[in-house]
Amino acid sequence: MRIAERAGAQPMPRHGARVLHYAVFPYSGITALSQLDNDLLLRALNREPVPRTPVWIMRQAGRYLPEYRRIREQAGSFMALCQNPELACQVTLQPVERFRLDAAILFSDILTIPEAMGLGLYFEPGEGPRLKHPVRDERAIDQLPVPDARDELGYVPDAIRLTRRELQGRVPLIGFAGSPWTLATYMVEGESSREFRRIKTLLYDRPELLHRLLSKAADSITDYLNAQTEAGAQALMIFDTWGGALSHEAYHAFSLAYAKRVIKGLTRQREGRHIPVIFFTKNGGLWLEAMADSGADALGLDWSTSLGEARQRVGERVALQGNLDPCALYARPETIRTEVARTLADYGTGPGHVFNLGHGVHPEIQPDHVDAMIEAVHELSPAHHEQR
Amino acid sequence: MRIAERAGAQPMPRHGARVLHYAVFPYSGITALSQLDNDLLLRALNREPVPRTPVWIMRQAGRYLPEYRRIREQAGSFMALCQNPELACQVTLQPVERFRLDAAILFSDILTIPEAMGLGLYFEPGEGPRLKHPVRDERAIDQLPVPDARDELGYVPDAIRLTRRELQGRVPLIGFAGSPWTLATYMVEGESSREFRRIKTLLYDRPELLHRLLSKAADSITDYLNAQTEAGAQALMIFDTWGGALSHEAYHAFSLAYAKRVIKGLTRQREGRHIPVIFFTKNGGLWLEAMADSGADALGLDWSTSLGEARQRVGERVALQGNLDPCALYARPETIRTEVARTLADYGTGPGHVFNLGHGVHPEIQPDHVDAMIEAVHELSPAHHEQR
Repeated sequence: MRIAERAGAQPMPRHGARVLHYAVFPYSGITALSQLDNDLLLRALNREPVPRTPVWIMRQAGRYLPEYRRIREQAGSFMALCQNPELACQVTLQPVERFRLDAAILFSDILTIPEAMGLGLYFEPGEGPRLKHPVRDERAIDQLPVPDARDELGYVPDAIRLTRRELQGRVPLIGFAGSPWTLATYMVEGESSREFRRIKTLLYDRPELLHRLLSKAADSITDYLNAQTEAGAQALMIFDTWGGALSHEAYHAFSLAYAKRVIKGLTRQREGRHIPVIFFTKNGGLWLEAMADSGADALGLDWSTSLGEARQRVGERVALQGNLDPCALYARPETIRTEVARTLADYGTGPGHVFNLGHGVHPEIQPDHVDAMIEAVHELSPAHHEQR
Repeated sequence: MRIAERAGAQPMPRHGARVLHYAVFPYSGITALSQLDNDLLLRALNREPVPRTPVWIMRQAGRYLPEYRRIREQAGSFMALCQNPELACQVTLQPVERFRLDAAILFSDILTIPEAMGLGLYFEPGEGPRLKHPVRDERAIDQLPVPDARDELGYVPDAIRLTRRELQGRVPLIGFAGSPWTLATYMVEGESSREFRRIKTLLYDRPELLHRLLSKAADSITDYLNAQTEAGAQALMIFDTWGGALSHEAYHAFSLAYAKRVIKGLTRQREGRHIPVIFFTKNGGLWLEAMADSGADALGLDWSTSLGEARQRVGERVALQGNLDPCALYARPETIRTEVARTLADYGTGPGHVFNLGHGVHPEIQPDHVDAMIEAVHELSPAHHEQR
């Protein structure tokens, strides 16, 4: 918790600040940076043989951890925490220090981009995120800027650089962004939606306008993810949280097509390594074949899809990540262990599996239940990778 | 609107009332009852040839209709409306009188059974349904009664008898119930849930207890649906609204297995006709093959599943019902027509398709948009049923 101690004494300037305290975090050169003590995640994403299944957890840095809640309080607001590279680095490291995880994922939010576009992100107590200035007509869409990921969003690559230095090669660092469709839902609706009335009315009645919005979102996301790779992200994940709300045809035209466009624009080689991309559409289990042709190295699966059936459907084209029901972590540790065994058995033997939940960990989960899951993966997964 | 006029003058006694005003609704004998002017729905559900695709709409009797809102106000509360056979009959008929629909579906609610079990259904303004006495431990599950569908729930068959008489064979009348799993989610959570924390903790930690609860729910639902058939329902639909929240393995064990048990217990022959059963799991598109073996005659599909792909997967085992995105009805009538054409084309030609939305109609939809959808089905579907 070295950074934690420093953070109180010398808080980083917020949003847009580019000056890092390199004296405090000595830069040890590209050679040292690219060495990894544990590269299981990267090997599994590349479908290479591994001695056991790597494991990380969506939202592993977050509210279920008491040490996170302390820093969150210190930061004042959720976005202040995202925009302070030192604090973001600190909470990114918390789960890696507590559990035997095989990856860190940058603590951030998918709504950093709409915020940098000037849409005025805020949070109502007890509610989800809101945007003060949703984008609902042609004029608003055409005036929408593509933010500079190295300037307005510079706090994200800054946090990645800090985190890479603090990780010192223990595990790889994952960068991420929302998918163009998912960002567009928030940009048009202005809030979390169950129904997506506004964006779907646009989709059905003014598809060309929605395509313009999605193009801008895709350009912004591509630039943003490339800035993360430049700063040291060693794998990337694209979260298409709301793709599953679309009809099968609309999914292909309005979500998958733009995720593909993002993936095509990504820097895929850095520090002598391939940068793998994980693409996750929540409730996208029906479309795995098409998702496997997206250019992604791996697909994230929610718990509604059988890993074994998914593997048969996508063949050797992609690795698979997932997919324990996050609610299984409410159960007793012995039950969690049984469910981990079931998930591993569902995938079967051989390479190409990254263990994860099927969605983010719920804030009320006990950390020792998370630990039970991770330890079960460590203990039970080697049998699925026996060398021949 | 004959009943509407009478209802004000002589309201039916509520809940449990069994005495019907047969003098007011002359009973014309089983022969007349079993004749149907329009049996397109029944033929399509049986995969028999039809000259055009039949159409009805989930929640077609409901808040989007101004004439419904007037009766709803008159009834005082939503459950008072469900429990008053005359008023329930009246709102059931409203969409049939307004639109060229091929079926009526009884106006009721899936929570009538938990209410009859004594769990104390109520509605908070602006919220979903709530239960005062959720069932959360072994004692509560074991003490749960199986209500008598001809006594405590007698207002439902009463409403069906009235509606059959008022329909006078114009179109068939559909009865319905929630699936055991879906009812159990409300019974355990006590309200609509996004996460299903309580019931899933039960599922993972005490599966045998959940199985006991689901058995009671299945018995209650079977009896309830059979009482509906006896009273004159000509087709049945089972709504598994929350099956899609389960993992693939849990879906089979805790939702599908109990839906099958219900279907197996149903009276399938009445008035010289087969009583077709439609089974709908929202977000169940991954499991269609297994659902097609449930004993149902037809599967309801939400809009995430391609009708054409679903048809290939289930073959000739079942008919398919669906699946326009309910949000498409927010679009302009010309757009709605295009989306109807797309949906019909997705299914292709030949028998076995019932047009519907992929979920219930939203309360803010304009009735003339619903009309545009129905008229487009009338106009465009005959080309998909050309006689050879």
